[in-house]
Amino acid sequence: MDSTIKHIGVFTSGGDSPGMNAALYAITKTAEVNGINVSGFRKGYEGLIDGDLVQLKSHELQKLTQKGGTILKTARSKRFLELEGRKKALQTLNVNKIDALIAIGGDGTFKGLLAFSEICDIPFIGIPGTIDNDISGTDYTLGFDSAVNTAIENIDKIRDTAESHNRVFIVEVMGRDSGYIGIHSGLMVGADAILIPESGTDFINLLGKVKNYDSEDAFLIVVSEGDEIGADLVSSKIKEVNPNVDLRITKLGHIQRGGNPSALDRMLGIRLGVEAVKSLLQSKKNVMIGILNNQLHLTPFNEVVKQHQVNKELHELLELFGT
Amino acid sequence: MDSTIKHIGVFTSGGDSPGMNAALYAITKTAEVNGINVSGFRKGYEGLIDGDLVQLKSHELQKLTQKGGTILKTARSKRFLELEGRKKALQTLNVNKIDALIAIGGDGTFKGLLAFSEICDIPFIGIPGTIDNDISGTDYTLGFDSAVNTAIENIDKIRDTAESHNRVFIVEVMGRDSGYIGIHSGLMVGADAILIPESGTDFINLLGKVKNYDSEDAFLIVVSEGDEIGADLVSSKIKEVNPNVDLRITKLGHIQRGGNPSALDRMLGIRLGVEAVKSLLQSKKNVMIGILNNQLHLTPFNEVVKQHQVNKELHELLELFGT
Amino acid sequence: MDSTIKHIGVFTSGGDSPGMNAALYAITKTAEVNGINVSGFRKGYEGLIDGDLVQLKSHELQKLTQKGGTILKTARSKRFLELEGRKKALQTLNVNKIDALIAIGGDGTFKGLLAFSEICDIPFIGIPGTIDNDISGTDYTLGFDSAVNTAIENIDKIRDTAESHNRVFIVEVMGRDSGYIGIHSGLMVGADAILIPESGTDFINLLGKVKNYDSEDAFLIVVSEGDEIGADLVSSKIKEVNPNVDLRITKLGHIQRGGNPSALDRMLGIRLGVEAVKSLLQSKKNVMIGILNNQLHLTPFNEVVKQHQVNKELHELLELFGT
Amino acid sequence: MDSTIKHIGVFTSGGDSPGMNAALYAITKTAEVNGINVSGFRKGYEGLIDGDLVQLKSHELQKLTQKGGTILKTARSKRFLELEGRKKALQTLNVNKIDALIAIGGDGTFKGLLAFSEICDIPFIGIPGTIDNDISGTDYTLGFDSAVNTAIENIDKIRDTAESHNRVFIVEVMGRDSGYIGIHSGLMVGADAILIPESGTDFINLLGKVKNYDSEDAFLIVVSEGDEIGADLVSSKIKEVNPNVDLRITKLGHIQRGGNPSALDRMLGIRLGVEAVKSLLQSKKNVMIGILNNQLHLTPFNEVVKQHQVNKELHELLELFGT
Repeated sequence: MDSTIKHIGVFTSGGDSPGMNAALYAITKTAEVNGINVSGFRKGYEGLIDGDLVQLKSHELQKLTQKGGTILKTARSKRFLELEGRKKALQTLNVNKIDALIAIGGDGTFKGLLAFSEICDIPFIGIPGTIDNDISGTDYTLGFDSAVNTAIENIDKIRDTAESHNRVFIVEVMGRDSGYIGIHSGLMVGADAILIPESGTDFINLLGKVKNYDSEDAFLIVVSEGDEIGADLVSSKIKEVNPNVDLRITKLGHIQRGGNPSALDRMLGIRLGVEAVKSLLQSKKNVMIGILNNQLHLTPFNEVVKQHQVNKELHELLELFGT
Repeated sequence: MDSTIKHIGVFTSGGDSPGMNAALYAITKTAEVNGINVSGFRKGYEGLIDGDLVQLKSHELQKLTQKGGTILKTARSKRFLELEGRKKALQTLNVNKIDALIAIGGDGTFKGLLAFSEICDIPFIGIPGTIDNDISGTDYTLGFDSAVNTAIENIDKIRDTAESHNRVFIVEVMGRDSGYIGIHSGLMVGADAILIPESGTDFINLLGKVKNYDSEDAFLIVVSEGDEIGADLVSSKIKEVNPNVDLRITKLGHIQRGGNPSALDRMLGIRLGVEAVKSLLQSKKNVMIGILNNQLHLTPFNEVVKQHQVNKELHELLELFGT
Repeated sequence: MDSTIKHIGVFTSGGDSPGMNAALYAITKTAEVNGINVSGFRKGYEGLIDGDLVQLKSHELQKLTQKGGTILKTARSKRFLELEGRKKALQTLNVNKIDALIAIGGDGTFKGLLAFSEICDIPFIGIPGTIDNDISGTDYTLGFDSAVNTAIENIDKIRDTAESHNRVFIVEVMGRDSGYIGIHSGLMVGADAILIPESGTDFINLLGKVKNYDSEDAFLIVVSEGDEIGADLVSSKIKEVNPNVDLRITKLGHIQRGGNPSALDRMLGIRLGVEAVKSLLQSKKNVMIGILNNQLHLTPFNEVVKQHQVNKELHELLELFGT
Repeated sequence: MDSTIKHIGVFTSGGDSPGMNAALYAITKTAEVNGINVSGFRKGYEGLIDGDLVQLKSHELQKLTQKGGTILKTARSKRFLELEGRKKALQTLNVNKIDALIAIGGDGTFKGLLAFSEICDIPFIGIPGTIDNDISGTDYTLGFDSAVNTAIENIDKIRDTAESHNRVFIVEVMGRDSGYIGIHSGLMVGADAILIPESGTDFINLLGKVKNYDSEDAFLIVVSEGDEIGADLVSSKIKEVNPNVDLRITKLGHIQRGGNPSALDRMLGIRLGVEAVKSLLQSKKNVMIGILNNQLHLTPFNEVVKQHQVNKELHELLELFGT
């Protein structure tokens, strides 16, 4: 056990995601039990640069496991991309006698740590937090399960209206260029068609179905956001083949990003947070903690990549249910 | 008591709204207790014209009080606007020996009944169902409370993200040209600014605030949809005065229309449904049942108008909290 | 306008109820706009006695309209029942130069204020907060609508299981000796039987139904808590007439008291909170603010009584649907 | 591919659990795509014995992925425990020309299939469905994630009240003799103490904490149901050491069993349902489909055992957070 660590710094970076506060609780509690102080930097790398930090207490965080977003706030930092910014961050760490750093964020966050490690040799640990679930080295990222739960609860509501009117509804879900939220939420709501970036922009099946759509039932389409996809594009394609169709669009938008974390995300935050501190005590450094095949798993930062997780099984499900 | 009524027809028309199924349950149960059969016409006036009907049983409807939308489906009927369509509807009523008709819908629905009453002299009763709460003669329409509950639950989620990033968020809610959902949901979530059609398009206060917005906290704007309002317009106005602002838009859209009815809407459906049948038994006709000042209240169809309900008290609240 | 008021004290007392924080926000915001400071006493009358107070800021409370419970905490105070305690409370008010007092709580809270008014002549205003909705002078108390929404969401879940097994389920809801939550939630979930204190303990109808219950469907009973009622009593009565019945009991308990306030309770908190301050500015004193027939209404404390609100219309609905 | 299968029978057995309907949808859709008919037997083994079956259509099931419980109903069958009952079930299968059978249920269900296989040689496939997550061969059973989500949403509500009053709250969750729901929900809500059957009945730590409890904050205890555990026992132990403590109990009860399935349970139902049919097409028989380490996994019925899943990592978390 590494007894040299007396003071851990922690921050959240990139987009916020549900479960971040549960992870902060677990980190702080585990640290306290091991006699370690925890300081939280506010607004991601910005707080590191500006020395904007608060002491974290597990007793206060304990009540916040159910809170969405991040109490430390988050931001994207342009200054940290410059060596100048990173030098200031190093100074903050030195001044505050921080012995180790834990960051919760996406692949960009870990790239930042990798760059930072060139001038700072205290150990860094990463925890994957993004609703898009597009990071290698873990089956789940913090926030994905909450985002999908929010998506399906709301698509269920839309089904009520779609069935009351026998209408075509296109619901657009988040995911940036990943269709992971799209395929999951589409399957879970029993959608008639599911369109995700990974399956290409071949609309033939969909348009064939909608061309002959007789308005005798609802027709529910779930589509991922994206450059060559998205609800507006799908809508215009449909109107080309069936101009009279009674069609509505809803883009779920940012409601998918907030809200109380789901059971899975709270547990994930706790498991990853505990393991982050334990890894530091075992002298690990510059690794991301993930859950692979239901087991805790460490991946070096330089091996963490942005990754599409739509695997063979999911592609088969898409073909079976969504086309 | 009017003992000549043996068979009531019922249908839902216009946009669907949560609570319609609870009303159908109450109508059917009350009718059964009084020895009256109930038939439900599907797809609003379309079902009347086409003779598309099913027998309703309270035992089956009892389990559906919690279901959003309308199990009878709904539609807007162009054919019923023509005398030809109304004549066919009359034929359906005669063939099926319908003694009275109850319609759940908006002001357009009641106008349809008024026109129909020129050629059909069985009693008609109306129940106000629309999420927009824009009908005179009732403090609440079926669906409004559910829509607002859905809106605020989702705006609460957006607040998590807005506060995590110290961002400006514009959330657009429904209401067609009524700001009733907008002002209510805006007040309920503690919005920094609330914009509704009734308050005009004077953005001076808002722009003054946002111009000096320092990104030290979230700034949450709730805006109603509408021609001279809406999230896109507000967004472009803001960007004129503060081009660098970190701003996001979410339009809640159709999620506000569906979903399980709230407590208030279920109770409203039950109260109005019971009273509709009791009114028929008391030989009432061509009236809409509403709740005014917490009491059951009947308004003749020709006095029912589309009405903005943003009263003096609400305007004062808007001025106090939302500008 | 009463310009002598510069500093308002506020506290929550009795059982907590959803909407209290929204009321605190509205009070503070309205006061600030009128140049008045607001201090919050913690733990009800205990904080008044002990001088345990914090300054309230609308900017902070604004984010908490959606939070259940009360951020000021609440308690029942034995000390305030004694003159000694009230004298200490008076001293606290004098020391802190409190010009007026707003209390959110139940009928016991207002009785306390009445006793206090004998030795303290600053104006007091009351806001009714209790999930039981058993106070005269208002159609709704803060928290009732939230409690019923929580009850029905959970009874809906129980219906899933009841119908999957064709079982008899008895669900006990809160209300102390008032059946208001019971009758509302029972009607809203389409219960087969509803038992409330106000309808007496005549189980004849229920037992007749259950005696012949053939397990071909679910049978859902909603019963209020109470001395001569409650789930256990109903269960033992049923087992007397049908010993082999497959029966389950769930007592919803304290989940009905917490949770994010519903739309109606947030709005109620805001309306009552604003009016409390406005009433002070209009030199009103020793009155409770309520909503009667959808209008703001003031009732002198000495006329506020604990009241059963199960009126004639509700009794008829009970007879129609719940027996 | 096994082309001899033309007609699959399916049923749900034991306790109902959220996700069963999603599994039925996936089974039926996958079968239809492969030219196979699906019949659903009602009320578990009872329907097999009595020949009570309905044809399933994926088009209808598609809308029910979000519905809790099981549309086929479920039951525990004493008759099937007798050879006589199983012979009748065999006759039903022969008469209806059922080529294969898929059962969704717990370990008792699979034991029934094993006994049935002695007289019936068509292939059987099992899908694990129980909220208790106590079956070997799968990381998750259908319904566990939904039950935990329901538990934590409601414990979050209870926290509001506990914190408003600075009270001790004991919340009892389900799990029969398994503490899996208990430890998960306790960790997820930031409980001050978590008691589960697997950790024994050593209350020393808890009682030490509560003895000195000063009512300066809430104290939240999550405890599993069970013979030597449970809320009532914990309550009486606490009152022995601290008779004046302000303590409340809530037993969440059957609300944990119903409700719309969570995202994870819908996906689990779909994955397991698809794989059940694919396994039949690959001539598999008498196996349960599970997800082990995130991969589909088959376990022969005679190796499926009731299993406590509280592993080493969970025990460490319990020690860290819950004692």
